[in-house]
Amino acid sequence: MDDTISRRGSSLRSSEIREILKLTLKPEIISFASGLPNPEAFPHTELRKISDYLLREKYKTVLQYGITEGYNDLREAILDRMKRYKVDVTLDNIIITTAAQQGLAALGLVILNPGDKIAVSYTTFLGMLTVFSLMESVAVPLSMDENGLNIDELENRLEENKKKGTPIKIVYVVPNFQNPTGVTLSEQRRRRLVELAGEYNFFIIEDDPYGELRYSGDPIDMIISFDMPKGNEGNTIYIGTFSKTIAPGLRIGWAVGPENLIRKMVIAKQAFDLCTDTFSQALIAEYLKRGLMDDHNERIINLYRHKRDVMLENMDKYFPAEVTWIRPDGGLYLWVILPKGTDTKELLRKAVEKKVAFIPGHVFATDIKIQNTFRLNFSCESDENIVEGIKRLGEVIAAELKKPK
Amino acid sequence: MDDTISRRGSSLRSSEIREILKLTLKPEIISFASGLPNPEAFPHTELRKISDYLLREKYKTVLQYGITEGYNDLREAILDRMKRYKVDVTLDNIIITTAAQQGLAALGLVILNPGDKIAVSYTTFLGMLTVFSLMESVAVPLSMDENGLNIDELENRLEENKKKGTPIKIVYVVPNFQNPTGVTLSEQRRRRLVELAGEYNFFIIEDDPYGELRYSGDPIDMIISFDMPKGNEGNTIYIGTFSKTIAPGLRIGWAVGPENLIRKMVIAKQAFDLCTDTFSQALIAEYLKRGLMDDHNERIINLYRHKRDVMLENMDKYFPAEVTWIRPDGGLYLWVILPKGTDTKELLRKAVEKKVAFIPGHVFATDIKIQNTFRLNFSCESDENIVEGIKRLGEVIAAELKKPK
Repeated sequence: MDDTISRRGSSLRSSEIREILKLTLKPEIISFASGLPNPEAFPHTELRKISDYLLREKYKTVLQYGITEGYNDLREAILDRMKRYKVDVTLDNIIITTAAQQGLAALGLVILNPGDKIAVSYTTFLGMLTVFSLMESVAVPLSMDENGLNIDELENRLEENKKKGTPIKIVYVVPNFQNPTGVTLSEQRRRRLVELAGEYNFFIIEDDPYGELRYSGDPIDMIISFDMPKGNEGNTIYIGTFSKTIAPGLRIGWAVGPENLIRKMVIAKQAFDLCTDTFSQALIAEYLKRGLMDDHNERIINLYRHKRDVMLENMDKYFPAEVTWIRPDGGLYLWVILPKGTDTKELLRKAVEKKVAFIPGHVFATDIKIQNTFRLNFSCESDENIVEGIKRLGEVIAAELKKPK
Repeated sequence: MDDTISRRGSSLRSSEIREILKLTLKPEIISFASGLPNPEAFPHTELRKISDYLLREKYKTVLQYGITEGYNDLREAILDRMKRYKVDVTLDNIIITTAAQQGLAALGLVILNPGDKIAVSYTTFLGMLTVFSLMESVAVPLSMDENGLNIDELENRLEENKKKGTPIKIVYVVPNFQNPTGVTLSEQRRRRLVELAGEYNFFIIEDDPYGELRYSGDPIDMIISFDMPKGNEGNTIYIGTFSKTIAPGLRIGWAVGPENLIRKMVIAKQAFDLCTDTFSQALIAEYLKRGLMDDHNERIINLYRHKRDVMLENMDKYFPAEVTWIRPDGGLYLWVILPKGTDTKELLRKAVEKKVAFIPGHVFATDIKIQNTFRLNFSCESDENIVEGIKRLGEVIAAELKKPK
């Protein structure tokens, strides 16, 4: 039977992170491995009221097929919200997607030919790596520092690849509190990225699931605000989602970009699922229309800021001095760097024995081995579990570092 | 900008049916064009009760990410239901998809290489044609009669293509009340199709959105019941959906097939949308668990049977004698055949002037021009509108047939 699987189909391997998550699912394990929002952050009471209203008053619409572009009320409510972030576009520039992931898949499908190059940071979002691999594209990995993607390095790669006749077609970036490192791209680099896109004719995918989850520091304007789509003009496509703010179980995301690209995405979406869940779109549209989002965001920002701070405080207290980490201004993740030579895959095995878990950094790597890093999620566990888990993890790391090399 | 679009992206054209549907959206038009279920058939009162329960008691689960394979309760409820249809498989053989369309897209992605051949009836489901085109596969069109796909012709094509070294990789079939023709594949042909799949090593995609909407005649066993997946064995993948029974706004479908293929689909789905809307999955799971489906199906079968009969009765009364049509035992569509030489694209223009609409048959055609057919949907309009619309359509057709050729 395997000879009847496509080339794309054969390249698909079950992702390593899923195997790791299986290890950590036992209830007695304190898990900093998952990337889930905290269920206490779901606005379930309001959604219950809205659901009752919609199924009483609007069932003929909210249970019916919708247009592929997305539920009008929702698209309008999102465009309205994006105006606050200096992004002012029309309905022709937006498509609702079945969460952000579908936006990435549709873009991959309509932009990438097999062998096409796409520049990303060394460690990046796994869901995008899956899309690259399906589209048989080639990742061009770039280093990062505390200001995000190394733009000078990008410029070198762009020039090199242009000369070789294999131009880079997409630069993929998670600008705010990146998964997995928590790093944010500086405004200067955002502006430079847009200049380069015009110069070298590539698309910028600005994937921004965490932008509204900022706990400290000043917000930085969206990349797309420096490269506003107008009709078919512009090189930036912004990908948004309600998964990390409202609820990931309602699979609702969106993409904003040049009209001709959005139109291609609409047709790709017809092949993927015809339209996104109408009922979930209507739930979120009504949630936004009722003006509930700002108070809600404030609540979850307070919740997550507190959890981040508890974790950081206890890392200061319990982690050996040789260990460093990035202090993120938002998002859901902390990135930990151990001394060179430490193997965090092996460390995870020992941590799980002590009933605490994380994700080793190499899982997020494009093509180089990053063996001495790991990702901690701080959004899900109780405060008590964060303290206890970080303490145990500190002990496991200390024991590992004492071993003779 | 267009030079940065992929080869796949460039092949995407906005579908003609969408343009036609736009014509017919004016409220004064009696439309037999769409393929929508009737909103009166949505079980909104029960869904409202279930939604209230879930968001009160289970919000931590139903608003959270789910596993890619699908919500366990739903998969179990579906497997349970499929046992009635002599299909007895395990959780490893089923994946929940974002409606049936995503099952088709995932299968296309994991099975088809560019240039691969896929056999279909001359007129077939548009959503599948979009997937073929995205995967750059080649359609091998087959004729149909009142017993469905012409299996002898298929055998010839299989043999021919095998000899040429371009074997047919998939046979796609909508076995019950096919869209657009309403034709059902006979049991004998279903069994023969399974034999051929074993002999020629191809996959059968059994796409069955209408199977439970039977208004007359005896049910025929599912193709997959003659080719039960067991572990990795079997050539048939069954695609199901709740779009035509419960509600299309909840985008919930499923696929049942050999384990290795389902596993590949799971990974493709990770790229598409990570998981299907958890809330909608939970709504339908609870609906099935509460045993509401059978009574509901009986209600909508009565509703749609009545509408079919009203339409057929009035076609007998108002359509000119030279016009013929297929009397379907279920589904949502009637297929009308006009004398050769009639151009139904032109006829539509005249019908819309008289404020009645249908879809010309050529829209559903793979590679040949079928100019003298059209599809009528009978599920959506009121009884009064069906009578009035068919009367008007009869007049438009009569006028057209009287024109000198």
